[in-house]
Amino acid sequence: MKVGIVMGSKSDYAVVSRAEGVLDAFGVGYKTRIVSAHRTPSAAEAFSKGAEGEGLEVIIAAAGKAAHLAGVMAANTPLPVIGLPVKSSTLDGLDSLLSTVQMPKGVPVATVAIDGAENAALLAVQILAVKDPGLREAVREYKATMEREIMQADREFQDGKQGPH
Amino acid sequence: MKVGIVMGSKSDYAVVSRAEGVLDAFGVGYKTRIVSAHRTPSAAEAFSKGAEGEGLEVIIAAAGKAAHLAGVMAANTPLPVIGLPVKSSTLDGLDSLLSTVQMPKGVPVATVAIDGAENAALLAVQILAVKDPGLREAVREYKATMEREIMQADREFQDGKQGPH
Amino acid sequence: MKVGIVMGSKSDYAVVSRAEGVLDAFGVGYKTRIVSAHRTPSAAEAFSKGAEGEGLEVIIAAAGKAAHLAGVMAANTPLPVIGLPVKSSTLDGLDSLLSTVQMPKGVPVATVAIDGAENAALLAVQILAVKDPGLREAVREYKATMEREIMQADREFQDGKQGPH
Amino acid sequence: MKVGIVMGSKSDYAVVSRAEGVLDAFGVGYKTRIVSAHRTPSAAEAFSKGAEGEGLEVIIAAAGKAAHLAGVMAANTPLPVIGLPVKSSTLDGLDSLLSTVQMPKGVPVATVAIDGAENAALLAVQILAVKDPGLREAVREYKATMEREIMQADREFQDGKQGPH
Amino acid sequence: MKVGIVMGSKSDYAVVSRAEGVLDAFGVGYKTRIVSAHRTPSAAEAFSKGAEGEGLEVIIAAAGKAAHLAGVMAANTPLPVIGLPVKSSTLDGLDSLLSTVQMPKGVPVATVAIDGAENAALLAVQILAVKDPGLREAVREYKATMEREIMQADREFQDGKQGPH
Amino acid sequence: MKVGIVMGSKSDYAVVSRAEGVLDAFGVGYKTRIVSAHRTPSAAEAFSKGAEGEGLEVIIAAAGKAAHLAGVMAANTPLPVIGLPVKSSTLDGLDSLLSTVQMPKGVPVATVAIDGAENAALLAVQILAVKDPGLREAVREYKATMEREIMQADREFQDGKQGPH
Amino acid sequence: MKVGIVMGSKSDYAVVSRAEGVLDAFGVGYKTRIVSAHRTPSAAEAFSKGAEGEGLEVIIAAAGKAAHLAGVMAANTPLPVIGLPVKSSTLDGLDSLLSTVQMPKGVPVATVAIDGAENAALLAVQILAVKDPGLREAVREYKATMEREIMQADREFQDGKQGPH
Amino acid sequence: MKVGIVMGSKSDYAVVSRAEGVLDAFGVGYKTRIVSAHRTPSAAEAFSKGAEGEGLEVIIAAAGKAAHLAGVMAANTPLPVIGLPVKSSTLDGLDSLLSTVQMPKGVPVATVAIDGAENAALLAVQILAVKDPGLREAVREYKATMEREIMQADREFQDGKQGPH
Repeated sequence: MKVGIVMGSKSDYAVVSRAEGVLDAFGVGYKTRIVSAHRTPSAAEAFSKGAEGEGLEVIIAAAGKAAHLAGVMAANTPLPVIGLPVKSSTLDGLDSLLSTVQMPKGVPVATVAIDGAENAALLAVQILAVKDPGLREAVREYKATMEREIMQADREFQDGKQGPH
Repeated sequence: MKVGIVMGSKSDYAVVSRAEGVLDAFGVGYKTRIVSAHRTPSAAEAFSKGAEGEGLEVIIAAAGKAAHLAGVMAANTPLPVIGLPVKSSTLDGLDSLLSTVQMPKGVPVATVAIDGAENAALLAVQILAVKDPGLREAVREYKATMEREIMQADREFQDGKQGPH
Repeated sequence: MKVGIVMGSKSDYAVVSRAEGVLDAFGVGYKTRIVSAHRTPSAAEAFSKGAEGEGLEVIIAAAGKAAHLAGVMAANTPLPVIGLPVKSSTLDGLDSLLSTVQMPKGVPVATVAIDGAENAALLAVQILAVKDPGLREAVREYKATMEREIMQADREFQDGKQGPH
Repeated sequence: MKVGIVMGSKSDYAVVSRAEGVLDAFGVGYKTRIVSAHRTPSAAEAFSKGAEGEGLEVIIAAAGKAAHLAGVMAANTPLPVIGLPVKSSTLDGLDSLLSTVQMPKGVPVATVAIDGAENAALLAVQILAVKDPGLREAVREYKATMEREIMQADREFQDGKQGPH
Repeated sequence: MKVGIVMGSKSDYAVVSRAEGVLDAFGVGYKTRIVSAHRTPSAAEAFSKGAEGEGLEVIIAAAGKAAHLAGVMAANTPLPVIGLPVKSSTLDGLDSLLSTVQMPKGVPVATVAIDGAENAALLAVQILAVKDPGLREAVREYKATMEREIMQADREFQDGKQGPH
Repeated sequence: MKVGIVMGSKSDYAVVSRAEGVLDAFGVGYKTRIVSAHRTPSAAEAFSKGAEGEGLEVIIAAAGKAAHLAGVMAANTPLPVIGLPVKSSTLDGLDSLLSTVQMPKGVPVATVAIDGAENAALLAVQILAVKDPGLREAVREYKATMEREIMQADREFQDGKQGPH
Repeated sequence: MKVGIVMGSKSDYAVVSRAEGVLDAFGVGYKTRIVSAHRTPSAAEAFSKGAEGEGLEVIIAAAGKAAHLAGVMAANTPLPVIGLPVKSSTLDGLDSLLSTVQMPKGVPVATVAIDGAENAALLAVQILAVKDPGLREAVREYKATMEREIMQADREFQDGKQGPH
Repeated sequence: MKVGIVMGSKSDYAVVSRAEGVLDAFGVGYKTRIVSAHRTPSAAEAFSKGAEGEGLEVIIAAAGKAAHLAGVMAANTPLPVIGLPVKSSTLDGLDSLLSTVQMPKGVPVATVAIDGAENAALLAVQILAVKDPGLREAVREYKATMEREIMQADREFQDGKQGPH
């Protein structure tokens, strides 16, 4: 297991599961935990302090509203921490985004788009690829496949419109 | 000492000192510390966990940007925690405000206005007054004095305009 | 009765009732009233001026849009006032939040998250606990229970995933 | 005196004095008071309740941050109330604007632009002109003069550029 | 007919009809027109220039997005113009509000809350009441009735809760 | 003269003059006028209705706050209209931007960045180049020059740093 | 074919098809492609670099979130580029709008309203009309028809209300 | 050289140089280039496509306004890309932040705070540390030093206040 995923509440799993799907596709092992910066601070601290020793290399932290979970992780580990802001029922995700990204000097959180779970996972893979040429190659192939698929969608779209113009 | 004040950085003291002034005026003892949710997480945890045992009764936490300090306090103590969002160099304080106030269910932070240091202190006094009739009386007098001063300012303003209309 | 709850309109009760549920769970007595800063200003004034005499110790004020109810309470009582901004049909709660939290010097409102009714109640309990050791203990237990429940949710989540990774 | 002007703090007079200048130009009498929704609630209530009896016909209320002054006026008088949101040191006036304009059903505040003191006064004049044909004529002339001045500025600007194109 | 109501599109009538209901209740005559600042500029100009001659005394302009209709009215008539920002499918009404309220010096628009149709009408009535004592009395009664209804709602709410606390 | 430039106030010329500089550089004739949607509505209407007859082919409209000038132009001419939102003293240009860009269906305004005067002019040139191959070539050269200059700046920057890394 | 339409994802076609409808109505030929600034950068570059050679005269680029597609087009072609910000699932289109409109000096994007597909097409037609008098006439007729239709809607609305007032 | 730094304009170097300082402190080699997504698209493409081959392992891209530079990098390389939004003269950095962070699925940008140059560098170091135990140790020491310094600042602050309370 290379990637530790934490989410502030079980309800975040609707978003987080999409990150797991991407890691599965890359064959990157992970563990997913429900830990909360505010409601289980000891578990959050324990997780972040133990992450490196357990062999984790990157952490993804998903949370909403005053989203402090990524910041707590980043405070307690030298590992790179990816922040995934989750949209909640008010303010359309702006609170989650600002709470995650606006970190003070010395404690970065690598923030992705609101609800951008796939990108959180993909960024984790890109980071792991720094030392794993096979993974780097897989990222390259992922990008190439994505490119081919959109080009294929474009061709089909063109074909579907054939005639009218 | 009844009130613990924590600030995320020494630069926040320009704002925080105004809270101390109010507490001084009410004769309420306090201690002020520089602890950071992200840069001295152990000190932050130690402070928040030890606060009740030390006899503190209210905590004021001042921080800017992704302002997690009040949240960390609230996670680790049953004491009421007052959040004082500090305006930083970008986003005009909106990030600090949202990071402080939008706390998840179960862990409230009593948030005051951006840079509202006097109000943070006054709220602490109002909370302490729940068990201290003398302090309650002092709050009442504070409000009455404030009212008299503004009414006096109004009279002087009226007098200063005498004649023209 | 220790806590006075006021809401600006009956429609706010969908949110406010969650605050009552928390107070019930802590065995803290309360009374809930519909009073409006703008539509029943005399009732609002009477309530806020009479609150202390009636034995109330904390006030929770819930309102939306240009949410002035908490401010009116705070203007007329030395008691601590908790502001609960309620999301309305436009602007996603931002107007309610700013109208509640951005109070001028001298008249604090302890603001919680938009629609954060449970936290408003919990903050009231934390404030009352300043003079009630039993209540303090109850808060401590509430936090411990919450922590256990999330840790239990985490374990069940881990168990449910057993196998795939 | 037809127009009552209230401002929440003496510091608002830098803005408010521009409203007075417009009323002076139209020969409309006014009185200006410092009253605060939160710090002198009794004075605010007394002013708003007494306004009609004193012969005032329109009220202008200027305030910043959680700007409740116009709302308090509107709650206590059947007179039309003009809200003038004043920019404060944070949030660039957005808090003042939303607190003033987003009034609940039944209690309108006629809101003008942030720091738009001249327009607050001009709107008061337009309202008074509903029953004063001389004032209506003065508004018409004001608009014509403004139009002429800008057209003159345009001509001078054209002349100043003569030659190059 | 005293009040001219213009709306930028027929779809705004869902909001505007609530303004008509309030005017009907006060017995104030009105005419409602679909005119657009951008799509029927001549009709908009004709309406605003002719309003005073037709005997109208106040104009209500309802529009969404880049809501210029109230501004066009205000440019062409000395009558007071009330702006009613209508929420559209993006940006939650913020664009409509800012386009309506942030008018330049010399051309005020009396802006009410987003989708605040009842308040637009009520403000029109308050303005007309400047010269109509009967209407002033009706506003006073409207406010009193509103107050009684909310106090009645409060009593029923209290009664409905009788027992539990 | 191909381009008509209008600005809502003389103070906008500090921004607008940068647009003139770009047009001068391309040798594109223009005329600049001070006309206001709200303060000189007849002049604004006359300008927009007469623009096509005068031989203008594109209009640039610069205005701040509730920036309706571009919209008024677009309402009255079939010519393409470029909107240049100007930052004013509050809200950091957001009001100007939304008032300019959020136009209703049927009346587009081609909006550029807040205070983006050079781009307004350059867009006008790109539009005129649709029928003028020489101008198209000039745009191509402009882009090539800009590219060379930045590449040159990059080389000088590299050279300036020579040694340390 | 005069107009090249690109969209960042097939899901944008729900919005983009409305632009095609307008171009069809004007008899303006176009081709629509799915190309992504981020996922098919080579195709995006190829499209933008080849556009002029293919005879295209205007480009419409539709994209959401961090909407870079219009910017990529504008970087690589001297043709005028119209940006159509598409609302996505978070932030209500504000991210798309700012990413599209706030272009740096030298590379304008002519931005229309969020989801304003008809206006993107209409702006393209207005630009093409700079060299095509028939198209200019068609725009003039389009505006006249729109005006007549709204005036007709107004008359029917008036008739439908006949009687009550 | 492990880290490639690109900035959209030379003026961004005031911010970017702070990132270089951090990399220097860690002994991590880097090269800094001025390349622009919009003004030197070929150089931007060449840099991003060549980065991996040159031996770079992480890219930091700094840009303001419609900040597309990080996105262009991410489109063309499998390397992890760190986005550093730079505050410009309008909108207080919100446009830069949203343009950088709200990337579509498949192309992540690891975004740090507005003007957070030190954190961009530190994140790069954390990523490189995934394969470099010495660097990991250096990060751990950096965090420990930062912690000690703040604790020292706290002690000095305490000492400086000695006496009064």
